[in-house]
Amino acid sequence: MLEQTRFCSQCGTAVATLVPEGDSRPRQVCPACGHVHYVNPKLVVGSLPVWQDKVLMCRRAIEPRVGYWTLPAGFMETDETLAQAATRETLEEACAEIELQGLQTIVNIPHINQVHVIYLARLIDGRFSPGIESLETRLFAEDEIPWDEIAFRSISLSLKHYFSDRRKGAFLLREETLGPLESLPGNA
Amino acid sequence: MLEQTRFCSQCGTAVATLVPEGDSRPRQVCPACGHVHYVNPKLVVGSLPVWQDKVLMCRRAIEPRVGYWTLPAGFMETDETLAQAATRETLEEACAEIELQGLQTIVNIPHINQVHVIYLARLIDGRFSPGIESLETRLFAEDEIPWDEIAFRSISLSLKHYFSDRRKGAFLLREETLGPLESLPGNA
Repeated sequence: MLEQTRFCSQCGTAVATLVPEGDSRPRQVCPACGHVHYVNPKLVVGSLPVWQDKVLMCRRAIEPRVGYWTLPAGFMETDETLAQAATRETLEEACAEIELQGLQTIVNIPHINQVHVIYLARLIDGRFSPGIESLETRLFAEDEIPWDEIAFRSISLSLKHYFSDRRKGAFLLREETLGPLESLPGNA
Repeated sequence: MLEQTRFCSQCGTAVATLVPEGDSRPRQVCPACGHVHYVNPKLVVGSLPVWQDKVLMCRRAIEPRVGYWTLPAGFMETDETLAQAATRETLEEACAEIELQGLQTIVNIPHINQVHVIYLARLIDGRFSPGIESLETRLFAEDEIPWDEIAFRSISLSLKHYFSDRRKGAFLLREETLGPLESLPGNA
């Protein structure tokens, strides 16, 4: 999952692995121009969109986990805020307009170099349909959630938090950390 | 601030700018091997460490903003959680051990492709000293904060939130967005 740099992004020379001066970690460094290729965690941002007492989910049309259910979410782009990323992904994957209610779940997944950020949201007009990356979009009541067909563990965590908090009547931001799940390759 | 990929990280060929099939944005794509070089926002993570009624700050020994005051913070690495990044940066820059109290301020800075995440924290034993990236470390009471010598606007926001929340007796997570500040080049 961690893409390794083999050639310098600035001059095309094959890079070497070494600890730069003043640093404490090995990096991919160019022996010709000296450019250091840092690798940092990527943000995956999405929403948990609610309409009446139901949650909007998308069945994935793309890898990984084609055919499994997820909340609308994807990689944050360079020209946007976290909130804009969540809103854009929901529009792209579920053709749904949302109003964000606040940060809901943050999941660290160090072994795949990702941080997942999910906002609680409200569907503005109850309208939705599958975007190009979704096979199907659907509203699920709590007892309809397809727990055995959820694409990613971070999404299951977010859903569990939501229903638990709803019963208590108070929505809290939670931080979680997921480690490798050896038995399900490709599953984050 | 946005580092442009000129050569393919996988095969060293000069890349082209084009919109990949199924995508909606221009990316740096390798014409030889087809590798797409995505650019995503980077997480800068740190802490606001409190001891009695004072906040621990560091005077920067490195660029950017050498000599200006900041909270301990830096780029999140690939093998850690947000909380581990905040704790590590505080140890590296201020030689201080902390206990995290919760997320305090999240600042989107789209024009420099960064998201800053600051945790409220408590110094464990009141001990601190300058790490290699700091010229000086010091505890500041509210009326001692060097507001005109703060390195980054995200740090000023975090400090203002902290003192405002402390007066109210309730600490809230806040999300902010900063745009370009033309008059101070290099200032985030």
